[in-house]
Amino acid sequence: MNELERIVREAATLVADRSPFLLATVVRVSGSSYRRPGARMLVAGDRWVSGCVSGGCLEGDVMLRGEHRCRDGAVVVTYDSTTEDGETWGVGLGCNGVVDVLLEHVAAGATHDALAFAAACFAEETTGTLVTVIRSTAGAVRVGARLAFGPPCALAHPVTDPAARSAIEAAARGPAGVVELDGLGISVLVEKIAPSPQLFVLGGGHDAVSIVTLATSVGFRVTVACPTIRQGARFRAADRVVSTGGAADRLRALIDAAAEPYVVIMHHQVTPDRDALAVALASRARYIGVLGPARRTRDLLAEIGHPGGDPRIHAPIGLDLGAETPEQIALSIVGELQAVARRAQGGKLRARARPLHARVALVVLAAGGSRRLGRPKQLVELDGAPLVRRVATTCVEARSGPVGVVLGASAGAVARALGDLEVAHIANDGWEEGIASSVRAAVRWAEASKADALLIALADQPLLTVEHLTALRDAWLAGAPIAASRFSGVVGAPAVFDRSRWDALSRLQGDQGAGRLLRVEDVAAIDWAGGAIDVDTADDVRALGGHAPANPPS
Amino acid sequence: MNELERIVREAATLVADRSPFLLATVVRVSGSSYRRPGARMLVAGDRWVSGCVSGGCLEGDVMLRGEHRCRDGAVVVTYDSTTEDGETWGVGLGCNGVVDVLLEHVAAGATHDALAFAAACFAEETTGTLVTVIRSTAGAVRVGARLAFGPPCALAHPVTDPAARSAIEAAARGPAGVVELDGLGISVLVEKIAPSPQLFVLGGGHDAVSIVTLATSVGFRVTVACPTIRQGARFRAADRVVSTGGAADRLRALIDAAAEPYVVIMHHQVTPDRDALAVALASRARYIGVLGPARRTRDLLAEIGHPGGDPRIHAPIGLDLGAETPEQIALSIVGELQAVARRAQGGKLRARARPLHARVALVVLAAGGSRRLGRPKQLVELDGAPLVRRVATTCVEARSGPVGVVLGASAGAVARALGDLEVAHIANDGWEEGIASSVRAAVRWAEASKADALLIALADQPLLTVEHLTALRDAWLAGAPIAASRFSGVVGAPAVFDRSRWDALSRLQGDQGAGRLLRVEDVAAIDWAGGAIDVDTADDVRALGGHAPANPPS
Repeated sequence: MNELERIVREAATLVADRSPFLLATVVRVSGSSYRRPGARMLVAGDRWVSGCVSGGCLEGDVMLRGEHRCRDGAVVVTYDSTTEDGETWGVGLGCNGVVDVLLEHVAAGATHDALAFAAACFAEETTGTLVTVIRSTAGAVRVGARLAFGPPCALAHPVTDPAARSAIEAAARGPAGVVELDGLGISVLVEKIAPSPQLFVLGGGHDAVSIVTLATSVGFRVTVACPTIRQGARFRAADRVVSTGGAADRLRALIDAAAEPYVVIMHHQVTPDRDALAVALASRARYIGVLGPARRTRDLLAEIGHPGGDPRIHAPIGLDLGAETPEQIALSIVGELQAVARRAQGGKLRARARPLHARVALVVLAAGGSRRLGRPKQLVELDGAPLVRRVATTCVEARSGPVGVVLGASAGAVARALGDLEVAHIANDGWEEGIASSVRAAVRWAEASKADALLIALADQPLLTVEHLTALRDAWLAGAPIAASRFSGVVGAPAVFDRSRWDALSRLQGDQGAGRLLRVEDVAAIDWAGGAIDVDTADDVRALGGHAPANPPS
Repeated sequence: MNELERIVREAATLVADRSPFLLATVVRVSGSSYRRPGARMLVAGDRWVSGCVSGGCLEGDVMLRGEHRCRDGAVVVTYDSTTEDGETWGVGLGCNGVVDVLLEHVAAGATHDALAFAAACFAEETTGTLVTVIRSTAGAVRVGARLAFGPPCALAHPVTDPAARSAIEAAARGPAGVVELDGLGISVLVEKIAPSPQLFVLGGGHDAVSIVTLATSVGFRVTVACPTIRQGARFRAADRVVSTGGAADRLRALIDAAAEPYVVIMHHQVTPDRDALAVALASRARYIGVLGPARRTRDLLAEIGHPGGDPRIHAPIGLDLGAETPEQIALSIVGELQAVARRAQGGKLRARARPLHARVALVVLAAGGSRRLGRPKQLVELDGAPLVRRVATTCVEARSGPVGVVLGASAGAVARALGDLEVAHIANDGWEEGIASSVRAAVRWAEASKADALLIALADQPLLTVEHLTALRDAWLAGAPIAASRFSGVVGAPAVFDRSRWDALSRLQGDQGAGRLLRVEDVAAIDWAGGAIDVDTADDVRALGGHAPANPPS
């Protein structure tokens, strides 16, 4: 289970024992830091129960003085290690960063509202949004006040001020991070509270034991399932151990109940491996790893009549670590699971040209008037979802950074189509000038988001995949100033632009798209067959099997 | 500690308790298998003590029937899962491979000679060679008989037959693996018994705990060292916990005493990190990882006046897994340590074009007559080592597969220069024909070694590095049929040739080098500045600061 889930469980025990506790939360960092905002640490008296807020530098202060610091209510303490005198906090600080930590005391028998909200999200396997005030000069709003969006939950100190509430509701729709509420003198931390990713280990051999233990430690909730489990007690670290009796529907139901399922197939027997592979491919699994050589997996796919090519299949499973022993193989497999969960590639960090925590802002351009189609193509529906929502959802799932959508023509209808999707709505009132106005709006938003690069996607490329967005991002991480998509012999959107190229984007005018830069610059071209399909005419819509609505009220 | 070291320790306890035990050793595999030759499993009565021989498929049979199977002495049992009837051995076998397992019973209070030899290698931090007979039709030589090369050790059943001894001595100089002793009806397993790689975790914060635990589980022997250790009891899994008091010489001595030292620097404080980095750079460390952003490490290097560029430095440390929590960061760091130990690159295995256990045979051409130099350039000494030995040593350290040296002119002297280096001596009596004869000899040897690719290196490229050999191999793993070195505007040796290109190599004649193929083929060119330096004339030798011996007796 993930760190927060562990803290939630530990805190529930403290509440039941009527033990008071202290919750420390990293709420803001700048410069270098070991942990990121949202990291938490649970302390009961002089006992460090769970979690951490640094690599060991700040925990001592939190334990010794935290209780005292928040005796009058929730407080944010700033730990600054940019001046290297080493012992400012009675502990070693050499990370050269500034870390703000929210300290909250919880009385004996009381619950903590953020933890209760998280518990509700985990129980319902749903992602909620938690917004916490971390700075306030407004008398009506105190540090530690909150609003929560998701499962119902009673808050100890809800934000009641109407102006603050409405600004927080807008921020909650945007990406996670610190947001300054304009003109209100309030800063908030927006957090997405997601249930732990769930790993299904299909196979109950002794080689599964190391995988279960290691996957649990890095935050997966683990289910071991196979037709007949022998020596189930070995899997102490697992959340569940299930003998399915070989029932495919039972296994399928387990996998599909998880918000974010990952599957590892390792029975060491052909028949159950083949059956499990068929179930996994039909399921919502995000990742399907198969132990054994690639050729064996190809044979299994052939047996179930599957053409292969599903990007979720990972065979041979694992990272290339030269693993030999079960523990090394577990390291290789869990390393890959962690990489896939974070959309990372698993190579050496030192090979990347960009900083450790570099962020790519992803912006979908959806402000155009669809002159050729005659109706807003952003709203053409495919498989029941408007194109703009499909593309924006893919951007969110790419987990590369904040996602925004530029709105112009039919702005109201497009915003409604986006619904509660966690994307920022970027207004472009000057959309009639042409696409350059939307590109400039995207750049301004990326600057405000403090991103390191900007990925521009189009609302009318419905076949966009997380894999392709990740490949573009990775080309930028590797050092390319611009990476763009190559299809049908041309290079175009989506494309990622390093911050150093934003000035050039800002100088575009009228109908000039970013394509101008792609022709004159040194661009890394990433092949993407899906780019050949876009929506410009009614024929395109019909060819895709979709339908276009009439012009809606804007 | 590594798996064998753990088995050695467990067996010592069993011997002290006068408990009999069974040792199972994987001695040969073909097709797909979970474990490789040399994997061992220790069983005492009905207790599975340590290690394993499969992913859970064979252990049951070893435990239930192993004792009985070897009641009359050491025996090799063949487990064949290529026919998929699943339950042949009363256990599931779906790996589609053949695994030979040597079973040996050890009586109460007796030691096992292979384990005693391994214990001696570990104690002396030295690599030894163990050769075990795994098939014999010769009456004088039994299965389980051995010869050991390294620290002195009494053997229970030494090979005494003179012809077999001499063939085994020759095989022991070659690479690890199964060797058929020509004309003797004997097969042997050659194993290199190496001490565990040692990890030095420099920093005693709580974030080090996960790293120590995980690194230990995958086979590192771990020392935690920092100026002052607080709460040393947290590091239960570590081999040693050392407060150095900040003494650089003390730390340096610890590191340099290890056969294969790896260093992770993570004090979270600038001063001890800087001091540790200076010590690590001066030491024999193979890997130097530094926690924190790349820029911070550049600042540390600047402070100690180091120009950077040392390939051992890994900053930011770890694999790109999007790690956030201490456990995830440990996964990222230990994943990188494991990758570096095995000369692997991280990244997803599925991205590789070649099979999981693909092997590259490395052959150094050292048969030439050195016409221009007038003396055998293979024997020119640089920093006290003959060129051929330098290059061959680098090839061995690349750990890509078996290493051979082609001998021709001055064969006796070159063989003496190689000393006890673990490389095969490939005779090329027709060396006077020209370099093509040596290339053909290399191909024949690579075929006999069952390698998947052949890397050809020259004895007169003294600046060859493990990193460059690894880069060539990786280009082949990624799918290039040929990868070669680019320097001074040309593409040449060393170069790696996929098996599909060996026919073309075999057709070379006279003075035709493999360079012919590089000009007509689709070659992946890997930049290597060091290739510009070779040794052809006496001036070259002097420029490198070396000296060439007069013609030795051959």
